Amino acid sequence: MSTGFFGDIAKIKYEGPDSANPLAFRHYNKDEVVLGKRMEDHLRFAVAYWHTFVWPGGDPFGGQTFERPWFKDDMAAAKLKADVAFEFFDLLGVPFYCFHDADVRPEGKSFVENTKNLNEIVDYFEKKQAETGVNLLWGTANLFSNRRYMSGAATNPDPDVFAFAAATVKTCLDATKRLGGQNYVLWGGREGYETLLNTDMKRELDQLGRFVNLVVEYKHKIGFKGAILIEPKPQEPTKHQYDYDVATVYGFLKNYGLENEVKVNIEQGHAILAGHSFEHELALANALGIFGSIDMNRNDYQSGWDTDQFPNNVPEMALAYYQVLAGGGFATGGTNFDAKLRRQSIDPEDLLIGHIGGMDCCARGLKAAAKMIEDKALSAPLEGRYAGWQVPEAKKMLDGGFSLEEIEAWVLKSDLNPQPKSGKQELLENVVNRYV
Amino acid sequence: MSTGFFGDIAKIKYEGPDSANPLAFRHYNKDEVVLGKRMEDHLRFAVAYWHTFVWPGGDPFGGQTFERPWFKDDMAAAKLKADVAFEFFDLLGVPFYCFHDADVRPEGKSFVENTKNLNEIVDYFEKKQAETGVNLLWGTANLFSNRRYMSGAATNPDPDVFAFAAATVKTCLDATKRLGGQNYVLWGGREGYETLLNTDMKRELDQLGRFVNLVVEYKHKIGFKGAILIEPKPQEPTKHQYDYDVATVYGFLKNYGLENEVKVNIEQGHAILAGHSFEHELALANALGIFGSIDMNRNDYQSGWDTDQFPNNVPEMALAYYQVLAGGGFATGGTNFDAKLRRQSIDPEDLLIGHIGGMDCCARGLKAAAKMIEDKALSAPLEGRYAGWQVPEAKKMLDGGFSLEEIEAWVLKSDLNPQPKSGKQELLENVVNRYV
Amino acid sequence: MSTGFFGDIAKIKYEGPDSANPLAFRHYNKDEVVLGKRMEDHLRFAVAYWHTFVWPGGDPFGGQTFERPWFKDDMAAAKLKADVAFEFFDLLGVPFYCFHDADVRPEGKSFVENTKNLNEIVDYFEKKQAETGVNLLWGTANLFSNRRYMSGAATNPDPDVFAFAAATVKTCLDATKRLGGQNYVLWGGREGYETLLNTDMKRELDQLGRFVNLVVEYKHKIGFKGAILIEPKPQEPTKHQYDYDVATVYGFLKNYGLENEVKVNIEQGHAILAGHSFEHELALANALGIFGSIDMNRNDYQSGWDTDQFPNNVPEMALAYYQVLAGGGFATGGTNFDAKLRRQSIDPEDLLIGHIGGMDCCARGLKAAAKMIEDKALSAPLEGRYAGWQVPEAKKMLDGGFSLEEIEAWVLKSDLNPQPKSGKQELLENVVNRYV
Amino acid sequence: MSTGFFGDIAKIKYEGPDSANPLAFRHYNKDEVVLGKRMEDHLRFAVAYWHTFVWPGGDPFGGQTFERPWFKDDMAAAKLKADVAFEFFDLLGVPFYCFHDADVRPEGKSFVENTKNLNEIVDYFEKKQAETGVNLLWGTANLFSNRRYMSGAATNPDPDVFAFAAATVKTCLDATKRLGGQNYVLWGGREGYETLLNTDMKRELDQLGRFVNLVVEYKHKIGFKGAILIEPKPQEPTKHQYDYDVATVYGFLKNYGLENEVKVNIEQGHAILAGHSFEHELALANALGIFGSIDMNRNDYQSGWDTDQFPNNVPEMALAYYQVLAGGGFATGGTNFDAKLRRQSIDPEDLLIGHIGGMDCCARGLKAAAKMIEDKALSAPLEGRYAGWQVPEAKKMLDGGFSLEEIEAWVLKSDLNPQPKSGKQELLENVVNRYV
Repeated sequence: MSTGFFGDIAKIKYEGPDSANPLAFRHYNKDEVVLGKRMEDHLRFAVAYWHTFVWPGGDPFGGQTFERPWFKDDMAAAKLKADVAFEFFDLLGVPFYCFHDADVRPEGKSFVENTKNLNEIVDYFEKKQAETGVNLLWGTANLFSNRRYMSGAATNPDPDVFAFAAATVKTCLDATKRLGGQNYVLWGGREGYETLLNTDMKRELDQLGRFVNLVVEYKHKIGFKGAILIEPKPQEPTKHQYDYDVATVYGFLKNYGLENEVKVNIEQGHAILAGHSFEHELALANALGIFGSIDMNRNDYQSGWDTDQFPNNVPEMALAYYQVLAGGGFATGGTNFDAKLRRQSIDPEDLLIGHIGGMDCCARGLKAAAKMIEDKALSAPLEGRYAGWQVPEAKKMLDGGFSLEEIEAWVLKSDLNPQPKSGKQELLENVVNRYV
Repeated sequence: MSTGFFGDIAKIKYEGPDSANPLAFRHYNKDEVVLGKRMEDHLRFAVAYWHTFVWPGGDPFGGQTFERPWFKDDMAAAKLKADVAFEFFDLLGVPFYCFHDADVRPEGKSFVENTKNLNEIVDYFEKKQAETGVNLLWGTANLFSNRRYMSGAATNPDPDVFAFAAATVKTCLDATKRLGGQNYVLWGGREGYETLLNTDMKRELDQLGRFVNLVVEYKHKIGFKGAILIEPKPQEPTKHQYDYDVATVYGFLKNYGLENEVKVNIEQGHAILAGHSFEHELALANALGIFGSIDMNRNDYQSGWDTDQFPNNVPEMALAYYQVLAGGGFATGGTNFDAKLRRQSIDPEDLLIGHIGGMDCCARGLKAAAKMIEDKALSAPLEGRYAGWQVPEAKKMLDGGFSLEEIEAWVLKSDLNPQPKSGKQELLENVVNRYV
Repeated sequence: MSTGFFGDIAKIKYEGPDSANPLAFRHYNKDEVVLGKRMEDHLRFAVAYWHTFVWPGGDPFGGQTFERPWFKDDMAAAKLKADVAFEFFDLLGVPFYCFHDADVRPEGKSFVENTKNLNEIVDYFEKKQAETGVNLLWGTANLFSNRRYMSGAATNPDPDVFAFAAATVKTCLDATKRLGGQNYVLWGGREGYETLLNTDMKRELDQLGRFVNLVVEYKHKIGFKGAILIEPKPQEPTKHQYDYDVATVYGFLKNYGLENEVKVNIEQGHAILAGHSFEHELALANALGIFGSIDMNRNDYQSGWDTDQFPNNVPEMALAYYQVLAGGGFATGGTNFDAKLRRQSIDPEDLLIGHIGGMDCCARGLKAAAKMIEDKALSAPLEGRYAGWQVPEAKKMLDGGFSLEEIEAWVLKSDLNPQPKSGKQELLENVVNRYV
Repeated sequence: MSTGFFGDIAKIKYEGPDSANPLAFRHYNKDEVVLGKRMEDHLRFAVAYWHTFVWPGGDPFGGQTFERPWFKDDMAAAKLKADVAFEFFDLLGVPFYCFHDADVRPEGKSFVENTKNLNEIVDYFEKKQAETGVNLLWGTANLFSNRRYMSGAATNPDPDVFAFAAATVKTCLDATKRLGGQNYVLWGGREGYETLLNTDMKRELDQLGRFVNLVVEYKHKIGFKGAILIEPKPQEPTKHQYDYDVATVYGFLKNYGLENEVKVNIEQGHAILAGHSFEHELALANALGIFGSIDMNRNDYQSGWDTDQFPNNVPEMALAYYQVLAGGGFATGGTNFDAKLRRQSIDPEDLLIGHIGGMDCCARGLKAAAKMIEDKALSAPLEGRYAGWQVPEAKKMLDGGFSLEEIEAWVLKSDLNPQPKSGKQELLENVVNRYV
């Protein structure tokens, strides 16, 4: 029944930190309990269909480097690809996967044909899911690759494109519901502009606001229980994308009455491109109450585009999962590897090796974060730092009990002349290094 | 009565584009009428007290290069500085100036002394303003230089610092009102963090939200008619500042119920540091209804810090003023030169030369922008590009008259298969080049 | 005989600055004499075959947007492409073009077939050149797109790839000679690394040094009179490319004894990606005696990849051509538009409009630069600034006549205590603005 | 005899990885033998006088935050500073320190006074060194802070500044020799330009070339046995610095005949600012034969200026020391902490904590790197990757035995059609993660 694509590679097992087997986990032990929960249930790993099974290895200066037997645009190839994909999920032992419609179905010549193709594959996936026990973390529509979307999908100056995109999202949300998907993601790769010279930003934002409201209304209508997630990214492919970062998405949601309906799917690489650290975006989403899920990868800090590499820096992972855990962990969300092999890594086994390394790295990060939380390594000093706000006058300032004049009066009366206290950054950095 | 600081330099005059006189305007002709308004009333130039009269020419690797007779921290020096400043405003012919409290008064040992010093200088400024006719565009409090603010002002973990800062803003808002200031600006140079390890972001954002509400409440209480403006900046001095960019500030304002009370003061250099173009930030503020004023300067695109240079690229200025004019022009806002000489430009005349070049550059930009607006050079193609949204189905999609299913039905019924249309970016860029 | 691709568009003419015709030159008047030379002879414009006729409009997140009748990989399509290309050169009135082998010939299955295909097209080009009078500015080999080069060409760990690449360069240099090419360019898009973990940098640099020496030796052997040019770029596609920038290339040339044999082809976008201004790279190449030619385009300062846009900022062009003219102007080099349309600009006329805007922008820059040189607007102050070095002791310091001890003795004897003088940056910036 | 500045803190001891004592080493065990050498002899740690004892905690938006009893500019304060410094070296247990003249002596009013002050402190240091056994890793002259250097030292347009700088270097080289310094460093913080408009780059490079030759000649004359090191940095404070990066310095050295006389002192933060990884700069210096020493710190990848933080990412340190060890380890060089506390870290103990964390981090990196070398974890796969170059034809290509035509003949004869092989990047990254 095996496609044979992965040769004689057997299911990847946990062998412990001392293993030198490149095809074994050294840290990800799915049944190990951390903070009262199995690691698998904490991390909720998902494989991204697009990078792992669709991307040909091209870049702007060179074409395909990967040779995959399913690289054809017909239904038979789509099914072979699905066979290999579920084989891969099984070998790797991940509970979830994610896909765009365009990743899984052949491209049709019309909306009708696209829908028909998608539904045929969804039937196929249903069986595969039942056979393997692998589930859908989230589905999404690719509204950026086809040339019809070159000037945007929801934000296109042509309303026909808006309509085509909206209808397509409907079919993808239907598919996601059928497959028991736990979330539905909107990434607006072309929702932005190349030049302000031909762009009416106010109008385009209103279009986007309406579009997302349509999706939310439909979700409720069909009883889809998963979360609707927007994935922020600042630019690339466009010069400027409207879902720039978490803060921008929050303002957008508030502006269009969506803040209680939509959360964010945060990608490390997109955070970096926006000038933020990954943990910043996670912490901010927690602070604003809109944290949903993560797209795990690593961006080269010194390359100015989305490099989508597998994560490999454990200290960074520890800080990221610290924020995830501090916010209560994933609800419907999970850890989707939006990561691709380097284009020179052309062997089938490289696909496994990339994911194994990433999963181990996440596992180490999770365990370090959990230990820091158990030890209150960071939270205890944090509480101490803000302890002054417990005094009555301080509370009054914050609760609205004091006006500016009353605060001035307090300053005068107390002859306040506050002296700075050490922020202890290096101490805290050293503390973190005890855990990683 | 002259301080003699500028030697025998006379009032700067407009001499027209062919003048080679470095101490004359070639393009800024304040009484020239553009789009029905005098250039002076369009541009509303202001000189920044801090860069022009306070900054010593230091950088992180070297100290003072400028030698100014008023570089002492006492009241006599503060008054000499004021004398030179108003002399400078007069020579240059600008209608406005801007200041922080710490720029204009000697530093006191306590809140009481700071207030007393500030008030003494405000008395002095009142006379100077009356004599010269120069007015205050905006006042502000320096809540970032003193070591008490090293961990933030409103967002400090120590509530005493919050109180000290709040009381200080009160005194500065009082001063701004007395001087007829047209706006009051909040720039949160230390409202952010150096490391998330010691930061409770949710709590700090709440502190900041309360702080700004205190300011707004007090403004109304004293009947200050000017606008309250937040000035976005992403980082520097801190690793991350909460008022990152216009989009972030908008979300913050919505979160704390401030979106109808507070607008933004947008700086070119800060826009660049946040990864945006200046015109992007202006266009976005217009789209969100929060445009207030501009801090005019230029940031080196290739230096990663705030270079605060005088603007000198006319095509960029044209695009910036195009957005300003497209949004209706300045109400209470204006063009404040938040620009400093290069530290090697140590001659007194360099202060004038820098401003003259910047003002000429703005004037050329304004005239080009005005002409583009008169000719509908960009607005006519823009209208054409979105014309499709006038059809009834399109309107229905946007107005909520269609659900996702109804849109799908429309796509199916019409067999929609939209074809892309050229975005004409190069054509529009060439059109702009006809104007600059 | 026309292919009809450009419809009824006629030869582009100079109509002067007041023309609003988007298909006319407003500033590029090829026969206008500037500094004693026709503009055409100064600027030596070339069209880049790859961007203009080969690039399909794809980016990492979307495929082809352009629809061109020659988008097929066979000889008939290659000839149709050539027909359209030479038609385009003629309509635009450019004296030169540039190409890679892979742009012009169908891809063969072997080295033999590639060579045969190339030669067939070279025959065709020879006729086209004779008919149109358009000449070849430079030829080059594409050693980066084919998957065989994914790990480098000259720097590949596999010597067979080195050999294949070397043989390919031989055929391209032969072709360039046959077509009367004035230069031959080496751009090392894959000569670098993705990760140091699998890279022996010393060995790869030695391979590259040998490769370039092979080319130089062969050039002399066949009597090719043109210049061999290396085109620096820091990264993209690879993480790090060995020909990082002009300074790096210079060190490489010195290391392998090539500094008198090879010059540089400098691209604006590559300069920006390396953290430099375009004029920096030009000035440095002049200072080091290795300036050759330019690839003209514009990179978005705020997008971290090579955007290859048409230039449109005249002040920047003026500074660039100032350096070109200051170094004596082009010898064998020229201005090659390594620029591509935005992918939304899908109309055939957009190809002309993009080039027209770029050529006009260069023409304005050239004229401004020429006038600055005639007026000694920058050179006279420059000479004054360094005038102190004419005194005998200063000359001695520089010529080796003084040791460190003798200099100390001079400092002591003269009690030297040098005082800084204003650098006058703003004044000079204002001077430049008189010309642009 | 203690100054009391560090209270009752005792000598920092190694307590092993499980220690939670913030004032103990957990990984740096100086006598532990790694690859046959004591860790202290491998790492050769040095403390930087400037950051640790001179920097007041200021940044461009705020002044002093640290309060140190020696913050006065007189000889008594200079000696108190020296007392505290040597106390610190002793508490920390580092074998070396580094300084600029301006860090250690009061600023004089003239060259004579500067020299006198320096010599007085050197006398004092000689005694301190003898008492403590702490030695000088390198000395250097501060040719960037004083306003006389605002337009450069060696590259100043005023030859008097060149002379003053040269004489100053002489005194500092004399001092370094007297103190048994193992190296002498040249960092050209002002050797560059702010604007090309007022800069003659060729002339300035020639000035710099002569300056370094003067230093080398003098070194030989006085029999100084240490290495002369240039420290590359791309920008900041200036817009462009001539010693941009390792590759640029190499070209400069070759151009002025210095490549056998001068090596490089590589700083992590400077590497990052130049767009490189630290390990890139180290590997390149090894490849070019000019590796000398390192300035250890960490730069925030997302802040555009030199943040000079203590290193805290162990995986990065492992890759850095891997390059150091692969090149044979330090000869005269060492690991100088060119790192400063965050300005909020105002407690005396923070100085120790910052260094302890950095030293532990380096120690972990060193041990991981050593183990990788022992295991040939990276070198064995590397050797395999290039193994093809051992065949005779490949050697001939590289040794000059083949011309381009002969290579073509070989390609034709062998019908070469090389197939790509996986670069195995993810595998190697996972391998590294086994060691860190």
